Amino acid sequence: MVLENENYLSALQRQPVKRTPIWIMRQAGRYLPEYRKVRAEAGSFLTLCKTPELACKVTLQPLQRFDLDAAILFSDILTVPDAMGLGLYFVEGEGPKFKHPIQSKKDVDKLGLVDPEISLDYVMDAVRLTRRELQGSVPLIGFAGSPWTLTTYMIEGGSSKNFSRIKQMMYSDPQLLHQLLDKVSQNVLAYLNAQIKAGAQSIMIFDTWGGILTPDAYQDFSLNYMHKIIEGLIKVNEDRKVPVTLFTKNAGLWLEKIAQTGCDGIGLDWTIDMSEAIARVGDKVCLQGNMDPSLLYAPNQRITQEAEKILSAFVNKDGSQRSGHVFNLGHGIHPQIDPEKVEVLVNAVHKGVRS
Amino acid sequence: MVLENENYLSALQRQPVKRTPIWIMRQAGRYLPEYRKVRAEAGSFLTLCKTPELACKVTLQPLQRFDLDAAILFSDILTVPDAMGLGLYFVEGEGPKFKHPIQSKKDVDKLGLVDPEISLDYVMDAVRLTRRELQGSVPLIGFAGSPWTLTTYMIEGGSSKNFSRIKQMMYSDPQLLHQLLDKVSQNVLAYLNAQIKAGAQSIMIFDTWGGILTPDAYQDFSLNYMHKIIEGLIKVNEDRKVPVTLFTKNAGLWLEKIAQTGCDGIGLDWTIDMSEAIARVGDKVCLQGNMDPSLLYAPNQRITQEAEKILSAFVNKDGSQRSGHVFNLGHGIHPQIDPEKVEVLVNAVHKGVRS
Repeated sequence: MVLENENYLSALQRQPVKRTPIWIMRQAGRYLPEYRKVRAEAGSFLTLCKTPELACKVTLQPLQRFDLDAAILFSDILTVPDAMGLGLYFVEGEGPKFKHPIQSKKDVDKLGLVDPEISLDYVMDAVRLTRRELQGSVPLIGFAGSPWTLTTYMIEGGSSKNFSRIKQMMYSDPQLLHQLLDKVSQNVLAYLNAQIKAGAQSIMIFDTWGGILTPDAYQDFSLNYMHKIIEGLIKVNEDRKVPVTLFTKNAGLWLEKIAQTGCDGIGLDWTIDMSEAIARVGDKVCLQGNMDPSLLYAPNQRITQEAEKILSAFVNKDGSQRSGHVFNLGHGIHPQIDPEKVEVLVNAVHKGVRS
Repeated sequence: MVLENENYLSALQRQPVKRTPIWIMRQAGRYLPEYRKVRAEAGSFLTLCKTPELACKVTLQPLQRFDLDAAILFSDILTVPDAMGLGLYFVEGEGPKFKHPIQSKKDVDKLGLVDPEISLDYVMDAVRLTRRELQGSVPLIGFAGSPWTLTTYMIEGGSSKNFSRIKQMMYSDPQLLHQLLDKVSQNVLAYLNAQIKAGAQSIMIFDTWGGILTPDAYQDFSLNYMHKIIEGLIKVNEDRKVPVTLFTKNAGLWLEKIAQTGCDGIGLDWTIDMSEAIARVGDKVCLQGNMDPSLLYAPNQRITQEAEKILSAFVNKDGSQRSGHVFNLGHGIHPQIDPEKVEVLVNAVHKGVRS
């Protein structure tokens, strides 16, 4: 299979690239007027996710506007617990909710293994359709939420401030939580492998809430499960390596541990200097992200300066280019951002560091 | 002035102590039935804060129950912006709000210097009354929110998820934000010095939201202002040093920078191992906190184990005791915690590490 733009996949393997690849977390999203139009026509966010033609359509929108180096499947991390029977729904302005949150051992015992080709067929259809539409222009990234992050929503019943329910279970009945995490992990693994078989060329695991844990609890309850998933993932498909990136928000203190999972890339938030991250784990993994999404509120010149600052961390002292960098924001782009600012950023990254 | 229990003040100066001091963030709070009773009688949280007799009463409640080594003034960090004219109010279940949030340069220009002895007289009265009632048993900690943290509420108009308004100002009009932070800092400094004159024997600055910044922005917009406040604080009162502790949540990556402000102590959340924090800054500052507040959901034995783990980080290889440790949680105690669990923790800390 021909792939016109290999930069993203090469960077993740720390191989030379023609240019530093860039994509934007939530690049298909509310900041784009063309997305808001499709979203309004669909009537709901879940309809968008569950209709392959619409999911494909919005996945492609940012690529039609910007010269990006990867597409990412349009979906939601909570489709997996939804398929497990928890009943996902959204309340406007309040975020995701579950009709049947996990409250007891009985609830955990009831959960079973899901066949992603049946219960999540709409995701696989979206992957297949998007791959076809992309026509080999850029690679398609598949993704899932980490078991820990999915489980926070499954136990709290939605978004949370203190995560007191899941932490209460973690400290008062750790075995039950491990039993739940194990089931979720098996489903996430099957889900990601199905995405790969359907055509996803790289995988991201989003661990939005691992950073609320102690170092030991992060290892036990979040990282170990991501590690197992990485071990079980299909390594090569269509004769190409399928690289995996882990993103844990607020995990700057734990980069060494994350790098030990055998992941190809680590997604960084903005609380760490890229140069420090390179010094600590740059010889083991590709580094992605790091720009504060709010920086896109800044004047154009400042955006360009910040892009150059991050890029320059990958210029060696002798002026040569260090490999293993994927440019991205440190978290999803805010809905209020002017799309023109993304254009400024993409141009700055493609232009590279002024010498 | 006689002080029966010097452990807290000594530990902050990394001097020998008779026992590792312990106090609990939000020790006067909703987890205590006797607090909930006074709170219900007062009718509102703000009435509690603004009535010196009631504030004093709830400040003393945890000390009557537990063998704690310090009292902390009962108040709210948002009394300062309230005194600056922003109109603080609370909506049940939604947290704090301001009637007049800062939205423009005009709003910033209007803000002036507050005389804490007039506009915040109720706080000073509470400090004086509490000191009298404590009768030299344990020291009284005064506190304020950091300028950055207060300013997030002042601009967002209350609690926030993405902090997009203040970040928008920070990246699009940094000068205006500095002007605002400067005014808030002057008021915080005057407020803390008034607390010291009224009898506060140590100061804590709570920077709840500094951790949402990039390393550079944390230095510029949060830490520099705390640094200036430390420089302006009364150093000695009643012939005793008045030690200062800085607490920034999610600042484990930046401990070295924080230690450089000349603070006496650093408050840690639970995302860093205490032994790592000691290795990095233990020769410069006292370390406080670190236990995940959710650990108080655990069985008693687990609570004791965790206390011992943190305490043992301060035992040198030759078995001698390292100074400079104040035991605490890494954030405020949850309202759902059973007070008996606090008893278990306090006992474990006073018993020390099993040898």
